[in-house]
Amino acid sequence: MKITIAGAGAMGSRFGLMLHKGGNEVTLVDGWPAHVNQIKEHGLQANFNGEELTVQLPVELQSEIHSEEKTDLIILFTKAMQLDKMLQDIQPLIGAHTNVLCLLNGIGHEDIVEKYVPMENIFIGNTMWTAGLEGPGKVKLFGNGSVELQNLGKNQEQAAIDLASVLSDSGLNAKYSDNIHYSIYRKACVNGTMNGLCTILDTNMAGLGETRPAHDMVVTIVNEFAAVAAHEGVMLDIPEVIEHVEECFNPETIGMHYPSMYQDLITNHRLTEIDYINGAISRKGKKYNIPTPYCDFLTQLIHSKEEILKAK
Amino acid sequence: MKITIAGAGAMGSRFGLMLHKGGNEVTLVDGWPAHVNQIKEHGLQANFNGEELTVQLPVELQSEIHSEEKTDLIILFTKAMQLDKMLQDIQPLIGAHTNVLCLLNGIGHEDIVEKYVPMENIFIGNTMWTAGLEGPGKVKLFGNGSVELQNLGKNQEQAAIDLASVLSDSGLNAKYSDNIHYSIYRKACVNGTMNGLCTILDTNMAGLGETRPAHDMVVTIVNEFAAVAAHEGVMLDIPEVIEHVEECFNPETIGMHYPSMYQDLITNHRLTEIDYINGAISRKGKKYNIPTPYCDFLTQLIHSKEEILKAK
Repeated sequence: MKITIAGAGAMGSRFGLMLHKGGNEVTLVDGWPAHVNQIKEHGLQANFNGEELTVQLPVELQSEIHSEEKTDLIILFTKAMQLDKMLQDIQPLIGAHTNVLCLLNGIGHEDIVEKYVPMENIFIGNTMWTAGLEGPGKVKLFGNGSVELQNLGKNQEQAAIDLASVLSDSGLNAKYSDNIHYSIYRKACVNGTMNGLCTILDTNMAGLGETRPAHDMVVTIVNEFAAVAAHEGVMLDIPEVIEHVEECFNPETIGMHYPSMYQDLITNHRLTEIDYINGAISRKGKKYNIPTPYCDFLTQLIHSKEEILKAK
Repeated sequence: MKITIAGAGAMGSRFGLMLHKGGNEVTLVDGWPAHVNQIKEHGLQANFNGEELTVQLPVELQSEIHSEEKTDLIILFTKAMQLDKMLQDIQPLIGAHTNVLCLLNGIGHEDIVEKYVPMENIFIGNTMWTAGLEGPGKVKLFGNGSVELQNLGKNQEQAAIDLASVLSDSGLNAKYSDNIHYSIYRKACVNGTMNGLCTILDTNMAGLGETRPAHDMVVTIVNEFAAVAAHEGVMLDIPEVIEHVEECFNPETIGMHYPSMYQDLITNHRLTEIDYINGAISRKGKKYNIPTPYCDFLTQLIHSKEEILKAK
């Protein structure tokens, strides 16, 4: 199968590498010139569960796509704020039969994908795989993971099941979900609390959890996510989700960790994905006429902080 | 007149000094032992518009008040969170005819004063005087100012007018206001936006003002203050108040300044007055069934930050 990985960072490289090893015709597309050039000249270098691999994979800079040859499957793995530009840049590769699988973190990406791809060709999912980028052209891929995915288009269940098989045939351990939005919203509740609150309070998750207001803030934010999800027919089990979120406070498991948004903004002065987490709930809330003031305010605070730190 | 200054920090010392010079029998009460001892041993030292003064004023540590002699007037000038304890400690000084004037920043102090003083004896106000504490027993008092005040009790207008005269006779430039709550709410809108937002975003007022979300955050917070005020019959001119608040963004006037809450919490790791600014709006909102989510959330964030910084 002709597969294009759109956004070939750490996770995109893992999927590209594994799908290539599984016998597919994989092309990587990315927007970072140093990374693209390194792969072009020296191949993709990976430490794959301890084994050093170098794989020659076709790679293209997204702004310089010349081919008009349609691809069978595009897997989207950009940062959320780069998704729209990526979809514009890869337009020449999208044909009437090109399936597009969106595996980005966060919610509401379908609003962007829909602008470029017919609904019946869109699939969304969640992955528990991990991956690390060591430098341009170099990734570190350890451990196991899984993928859940579902069709957005009506009557495309079989296509989603087939797509999961393609991924599983390459060891990606994918399965069809009949309620992918539940998993996506549940995961988004973790990101929608830990990311923004730890970033704005300049603390790790255990530090947040030790403060008396933490629980009430988590409850209010999860309830906003749940109200928006309910309007879309996704009925979150709110107490279970709150308990799941608050497992992050445990200093003996992951509590001492600073969430990715903290690392992006506070450590590296990079723009955040807030618009695709709390900001997505704000936008959907406005559209559905559901008040989401905590998500609104947290999104505004993070954007102000981005400007104050001159994040890029 | 026998006047007790309850909370003899910078502003309390100014009022005490001026009322003493004006011929009143002033006693200072404060909770900071080093400050009280210094005044006891060496008098209150003041740089009063350039002139070095030392004034012997009776002073008592609030936890060691032995006198039961009632005072005519108590002027409250504690930090907001110390108000309740102060009122407990000065109970022996409060008689049936003791007037109590509350000049603290913020709103909702009357809820606390009412627990200890009959309504007809309570007066509240606003002051534009400034004062600086240089160290224990030493203050710096420059410039001019004014006081506005009003009775809380019914039919106590004349008492309020008389009280303003007492202050004015000592040069404090006080006048009766028939709408003191308007002035208090208008000033609280400045504190309720600049203090919390600059503190949580770690920036000065100009830095906040330069960010794109600043205006919308100010508008939402001012509207919450206005909704609560309206329920109490105080109809804020919302566009005028927003314009007044946003004058703080001007880097050529006061924009480069870090608000007092920033100095308390971020610079000095001290507890803040948030419960008497946004927190007061939250409490009143709950009581009146008016949603105040931005004030709720900002209060929670500041309290979390206090705990993270181990503020005392």
